[in-house]
Order: sequence, then structure tokens, then C-alpha cells
Amino acid sequence: LVLQTDSTSSLSRNLREKTLTLDTLNPQVKAVEYAVRGPIVIKAGEIERYLEEGGTKPFSEVIKANIGDAHAMGQKPITFLRQVVALCTFPELMDSPSFPEDAKRRARRILQGCGGHSLGSYSASPGVECIRKDIAAYIEQRDEGVPSDWENIYLTTGASDGIMTILRLLVSGKDSSRTGVMIPIPQYPLYSAAISEMDAVQVNYYLDEDNCWALDINELHRSYQAAKQHCQPRVICIINPGNPTGQVQSKKCIEEVLHFAYEENLFVMSDEVYQDNVYAPDCQFHSFKKVLYEMGPEYFNSVELVSFHSTSKGYTGECGFRGGYMEVINMDPEVKAQLVKLLSVRLCPPLAGQAAMDVIVNPPQPEEHTFKQFHQEKSSVLGALAEKAKLTEKILNAVPGIKCNPVQGAMYAFPRIFIPPKAVEEAKALGMQPDMLYCLRLLEETGICVVPGSGFGQKDGTYHFRMTILPSIEKLKVLLGKVRDFHIGFLKEYSGLE
Amino acid sequence: LVLQTDSTSSLSRNLREKTLTLDTLNPQVKAVEYAVRGPIVIKAGEIERYLEEGGTKPFSEVIKANIGDAHAMGQKPITFLRQVVALCTFPELMDSPSFPEDAKRRARRILQGCGGHSLGSYSASPGVECIRKDIAAYIEQRDEGVPSDWENIYLTTGASDGIMTILRLLVSGKDSSRTGVMIPIPQYPLYSAAISEMDAVQVNYYLDEDNCWALDINELHRSYQAAKQHCQPRVICIINPGNPTGQVQSKKCIEEVLHFAYEENLFVMSDEVYQDNVYAPDCQFHSFKKVLYEMGPEYFNSVELVSFHSTSKGYTGECGFRGGYMEVINMDPEVKAQLVKLLSVRLCPPLAGQAAMDVIVNPPQPEEHTFKQFHQEKSSVLGALAEKAKLTEKILNAVPGIKCNPVQGAMYAFPRIFIPPKAVEEAKALGMQPDMLYCLRLLEETGICVVPGSGFGQKDGTYHFRMTILPSIEKLKVLLGKVRDFHIGFLKEYSGLE
Repeated sequence: LVLQTDSTSSLSRNLREKTLTLDTLNPQVKAVEYAVRGPIVIKAGEIERYLEEGGTKPFSEVIKANIGDAHAMGQKPITFLRQVVALCTFPELMDSPSFPEDAKRRARRILQGCGGHSLGSYSASPGVECIRKDIAAYIEQRDEGVPSDWENIYLTTGASDGIMTILRLLVSGKDSSRTGVMIPIPQYPLYSAAISEMDAVQVNYYLDEDNCWALDINELHRSYQAAKQHCQPRVICIINPGNPTGQVQSKKCIEEVLHFAYEENLFVMSDEVYQDNVYAPDCQFHSFKKVLYEMGPEYFNSVELVSFHSTSKGYTGECGFRGGYMEVINMDPEVKAQLVKLLSVRLCPPLAGQAAMDVIVNPPQPEEHTFKQFHQEKSSVLGALAEKAKLTEKILNAVPGIKCNPVQGAMYAFPRIFIPPKAVEEAKALGMQPDMLYCLRLLEETGICVVPGSGFGQKDGTYHFRMTILPSIEKLKVLLGKVRDFHIGFLKEYSGLE
Repeated sequence: LVLQTDSTSSLSRNLREKTLTLDTLNPQVKAVEYAVRGPIVIKAGEIERYLEEGGTKPFSEVIKANIGDAHAMGQKPITFLRQVVALCTFPELMDSPSFPEDAKRRARRILQGCGGHSLGSYSASPGVECIRKDIAAYIEQRDEGVPSDWENIYLTTGASDGIMTILRLLVSGKDSSRTGVMIPIPQYPLYSAAISEMDAVQVNYYLDEDNCWALDINELHRSYQAAKQHCQPRVICIINPGNPTGQVQSKKCIEEVLHFAYEENLFVMSDEVYQDNVYAPDCQFHSFKKVLYEMGPEYFNSVELVSFHSTSKGYTGECGFRGGYMEVINMDPEVKAQLVKLLSVRLCPPLAGQAAMDVIVNPPQPEEHTFKQFHQEKSSVLGALAEKAKLTEKILNAVPGIKCNPVQGAMYAFPRIFIPPKAVEEAKALGMQPDMLYCLRLLEETGICVVPGSGFGQKDGTYHFRMTILPSIEKLKVLLGKVRDFHIGFLKEYSGLE
């Protein structure tokens, strides 16, 4: 304890040593990086405030294409989903003739499953029982009859919560430096952030950019063997459809991954939050679970697999509800009991998010009155996304020095950008990644906020950025036009061609 | 990898070694205990199912007095709160004449603060800006003018989330065995669970049962000095009003704690989720922050303090919304940036919970039309709780072998129970805590589910249980009568007086 006696008031704030400083902070927290809301986004917020306060820039608004936040980009909620959640929130609306009977039926059923028939009570820690049952039924239907046991379903606070919880089971603080977690590169930075926070070993396997970001089984073997020299890889994470890379995995590729996991005794975490976001006509979503089933009982009864889903993506885009679930296959029953115990410390996932998840897995059926509007809204969102995926790829690929793989699924383009050596040097002199320099310049000059590829990981010497395809078609065209003009100017400036 | 070749189907499930077993599970997860949803509650669930399936017991229903889950015990939601959240969820209701203008105004303001004016978008990681501002204004009013800066307010997913996050900053995996976390005993087991999960050192300070569970400053010193022999205590956690102990701290006592924290350079975590739950006429809630302010600028500008609040308790009891906030005082600005980064990995707290929190800090005012109903509902809940607090204390203290301190605040009674030596021996032979044996017997014989004191911590050789005072008065009377009869029978049985 250091107590100085300086009496000036500006200094008196710093009289006493702080208990918690950057030096004494948990170094694992310090090591965490999360680019999707990182420095570039903080900068974007500053510029937004500057504009609001009457400041001038070469643009009138900041367009945040940094995060898969559909409603923030103007996507409208699915009416039926909101009707059900509103009915659950304020059951007096059950008497209102303006709410459809289909929605009331679902709301009544959800409330029946809640303590005191209220969304305000805690649910069981794995979630409301009838919602877990609806999810299991949905998975069985999605997977054309592959059995799903509702007791394997755990509601979560968004998919992120589930992913962190499962990693927590696998990584021990004391042995963390021995636990290898295999993740794709590029990856969604929740994974690297969780690995940093838990001080585990990040084991990179690189997706094949030259092959539409496909997962190459030989690369998995290489990565695994290399990692075994210094740690024990215990778990492999896959994101399908890919974030930030937008690829949709083929069935054959999934089989290879599962066979590999089986052979090497790896726990499989399959991030399938974009399962409803497939746009390329020649692509189809295959769940890891269904593929595992089709590989036969030797696989289906042994590989430990957790699959994650969310209310935040798909056609609903309900990020703010923090809804999600995970299905846990072949987990040791004693470990499952430990999982339930760990979940119970945080009591339960938010009930409104659980209700939203229920609507997604139990949507209006063709024979219901609400089907037409629901179907129309759903198709409209997914149709527009497919169009924007195509448009983004096309416009970006027409720019010299930009190469963009097809956006087969998910919500992002992850184009490769050529950055001239002079710009690379300048960035290094500034102590920043070259694509961070690029994205900062893009933001300052156009108001467009995208995330540097370095925040997701990329092969050395390659540069990318991630942008969402969520803005409206009109806005997206403007955005892409500005990116094109900026890029051409950037190339000119740093290639000395001005 | 062990692959056996036995072909019987029941064995084939276990052919392959699991990657994740109780032996390979993160031992810190294994060490976690959370009694509030522990073995006794799992047993209660089993009995409930047994009754539902037509089984018979000496009782017709299980009464879950194990958890502070007000709505599950029949408490009705505050109408105004639900109106605002429903309006935010389904803004088409803005046109409905059956929703009051006061609620619409608040909902409109909240939605203005949301991306795309939708509850479905992510908020900034610390929460919606206007809600943070409302919270700061509320705190200033509560604390009679002590300034509150909205940028110090962070919305959370229930208070638990905030408490875990702050501990995460303070405890490093690598140095965890050197970080001491001071907690009261008895405590709310979230604290011990978090400490186990992070592998930190739990430093117990005992509340004084003989003095209405007051916090004794001498005991703080004793505890701290003892802990310093083997670790570095960095943080002190206080729960006021107390959970499970129900005491309300005096202003003098809070001053002593803050002075102690100042002297020993401890980070202060003040769990104030029961701040609206004070029943004893001679008690009053004093916030740690206000007391710190009144101690003068030397204290107010230096002691690092985080205070937690929640939508789950008070008079609203909205547990399922997972709403809450923390106010962070004197945190190093660099550490605050790290906190925001850590929060951003989980994106944001649920928006419906944030909206619910907003209503709690910005309720109807006397000049508003909705005030009368709101005030009536609020008073009715708090009045009933006060009555039940008194009733519980009175009935329990009339039972020989039970001694219950006054329930000055919060939602629980934590009576001391005499357990005869023969029962203690029997429990030990069964490998369980004597109060676990007691509570299991109580559950099996009466259907009443309470939590053994051992789950919260207690002085060696003393036994307690925690029960909520949430059941309706009629049900509570029945419950307490059954506890009395059970206890008398238990004493008789084990004292050989039958």
C-alpha cells in the first residue's frame, strides 16, 4: 500500500495503488482478442459519435458490416416468432383477437413448461423440457429420421455460451498447456478468444482458399501430427457453413473429418449456426450428426460430438434474444452430470431466447393459417441473402487485386486483397497488421466498417477482410462500389502509380 | 485408441475409449459444487415425476423452497414491466389502445437505443446506452445525489454473469493458487463455485450467528491474516442483504469493511441484488457506494468497488429474463478496456433482460397514470414478503431445537437446527453431511425441498438449512407446520425418546 500525500485533486485520484492494473490483471484475459468488436469497431463508434455531433467526413454515415447483426442492418423480425414471444411475455394478450391461434397455442405450451406458467421463473438449467423435446423432434426431421434424444439437448445463451461451456469441460487450468484445440484458419474469433482465456493450445488447420475454402483432410493430419510434438490435441472444432469463409462442407469431407476424429480419439465440436444459410445451388447442409449416423453404429455410438445452433442467424437473425442450443452425442453419462452441474451455477439461459428457439424448431406448418405469411417472410429473407451473396462475390471479383471465393453459405464474404509492399512496410512501421491499416483507411475514407483478416487468422503473407452481406441490396451496392473505388485508389497510392 | 472386437450390441457402445471421462474432465469443473440445484433438488425432481406417474407418497406435492424463484412460487409479474417488454418485443402493439402510454413511451425509448430499433439486434457489449443512463440516474437518486457515471454501468446476464466476469479479471489460471477471494460464510454458493472453477483460494470469513449474522470486523482481520500465510487475498465479496442469512448490514459495519479494504488494498465486490428486499423496521439498505462516498474523497476516489444488481429479486422476481447490471468504481481505465473486450466475446446480455432492468430503474412516477397499479402491485409483493419473513422466524423459533435469526431482508431463512449425535453418526456412516441427511429425510417424508446448510458453509459442528420465504402465506404456514412436525419426530427418533 503506497499512500502519498500530494494534495492536488487531479493527483489525488491516483494516490493509492490500484489492486487491479494491467500488470496484475489475469494475463489470460489480456491475451484474449476479439476482432469482430475490436479496435476497428471502437474507431467506427468514435466516428459515428463525431458525425452525430455535427462533425464532417467524406461520408454521411458509418456502415457496420463488421458483425452478423441482421436486424441492425434493417432485416425485419419474423412476425410469428415475435407474436409467440410477446404472448409468453404478456399472457393477457391471449385474449386479443389480433394474435393468431397458432401463436397462442405455442405460447400456451411454452408457458405450461415454465414454473408458475411465467417466463419470469428460472427454467431447469438445461432448458424448458417441452422446448428440448421440440428441438429433438426438429433435429430428427431435419436429419430424416436419425434419432435425437431430448435429454441430449441443452439450451444455451446464444451458441457462444455453449461453445465456452464445452471447452471448459475439456481444458483444465493446470494442464491447459497440454490441451490442444484444433480450429480452422480462418476461424470465428470466439474460438481463439476462448482458447486464450483458458490458456489452452490453439492448433491451427488451414482451410484451402484455392479450393473455395474447403477443409482438406491431409491438412488435418499435418496439423495434428505437428501439434502432437508439443501438446495433446483433444478436440476439433468445425464451423459449417463457414464463418468467416462462407464455404459449405461436402458430405464426403464431413465423413473424412469424422473418421479422422474417430481414429485420433478427438472430441468433435460442430458449429452449425448457419445451417439455414446455404445459398449456392450446388451446395447442401449436411449435419455432422446425420453423416456420423450414416457411417454406421461403430461411429455413431462412439464419436463424442456436440453440435451448436442459435436464434441469431438463419432467417430470424434474433441476436438480441441470446437463444441457442447444443446437442450432445455419446457424452459419458458421468460427464453429462458434471455438465448439468456447471450449467446450474449460471441457473438457466434467458427464457425469451428459449421461446424464440422453440419457434424456430416448431414453425407454422402448411396446414396452419399463419403458414403463408411465415413462409413468405422466411423466403424473402433467405432469397435476398442468396442474391446478396452472389452480388458481393461478383462485384468484388471485378476489382483488380481482390479475389473472393463464392459465398456458398453463412453471412460473410472473406475476400483476399492484394496489399502493395509499400503499404505492408508502412503498416509494419506503425506496428499494425497490413490488413488493419487497410481496413482503418477504408473506414476513415468511406465510413465502411469491415474486420481485418488478421482477426480471423490467415496464411502468412495473405490479407483479407470479412464483411457481412446483410445490408439491403441498395446499400450493399453502394458499399461494394465504395470498396472498389477505395481499393483502386489504395493500390495506386502504394504502387506509386498516381 | 482401444478398439475391442466384442460384437454384442450392448457392449459395442463402450468399445471405444471416450475422450472425455470423469478422469480426463477438467478437475476444476469436478470441484465445483452448487447446492441450490444440487443432489437434493435432483432428488426432488425424481419424486415429482414419481408422483406425476401416479406413485404415492405421504404428501401430494413437492414444495420447492430451495431457490429464490418467485414466479415459480406463484408471485405474479409486475404488469407494467411486462407491458414494456411485450411492446419492445412486438412493436405492432404500440397501436393497441390497451397498452398505457407510459409503457409505450418507455418501450419507444428503449427501441430507439437498439440497432434497427429491434430487440433482435446485438447491443453494445456493456449494454444499451440509454438503459445504462437510466441506471446511472437511478443510482444517483437512490444514493441521494452521489454521482454515478453511465459509462461505469455494465449490463449483465443476471448478476451471476457479472460476478464471474469480475472474478475472471482477478484470478489467473497460472497464479490461481496465489489469489485469495474473501467470502462470507455462510455464502451464496455461486461464489464458492466460481472460486473452484477458477482454482482460486477461498478465504472464509464467518458471519456472527449470535449477532443476527452480522459481519464482524475482527473476524475479517483474523481471516485476512490467516490467509496471508498461504496466498495473497486480493478481493473481498460481501452479500448485503445477506444470502442465505438474511441480515441487513448497518452503515457502521459497511464503513468498517470499506476501511479494511482500503487499508489492505482489496478489490471490493458488493452483491446488492436484494437491495429492495428489506423487511425489518429497524433496518435500512445502505449501498456500499454511498457509504464509500460519505467516507470522503480519499476513499471514494480510490477503493475499487463493483456493485451488482439483478432483475431476479426485489419485487419483480424476473429470474427468467436474466437481467442485471454492475457499477464499477475506480477501476483502472486500462483494465476497463480489458473488461469491455472480455464482455464483447459473449457479444451482449439478452435484450429483453436489459429492457426489464430499465423498467426497474425507471418505474412509473406518481404523476403517471400507471403509477397507482404499479405501486399497488409492488407494495403487495413487498408487504407479503415482510409478513412471511416475520411468520417464518416466529414459527421456526417456536420449535424445540430450531433457532432462527430474524429475516431482516433478502428471501431466505437460514435456521440453525439441532441434530442429535446419533443422527450425526448415521450420516457420517452414510458418507453424507448430517444436514444433508436431515434435508433428504424432510424431503422424503414431507415433500418439502430445502437446501442443507453445508451447501452454503457453516461453522463446524453447526447445522442449518436454507428455505425461501416465497410460498404464499397459506402454503408457507403448511410448510412450516410440516417442518415443525418433522423436526420433532426427527429429534424423538434419534434421541431414543420414542
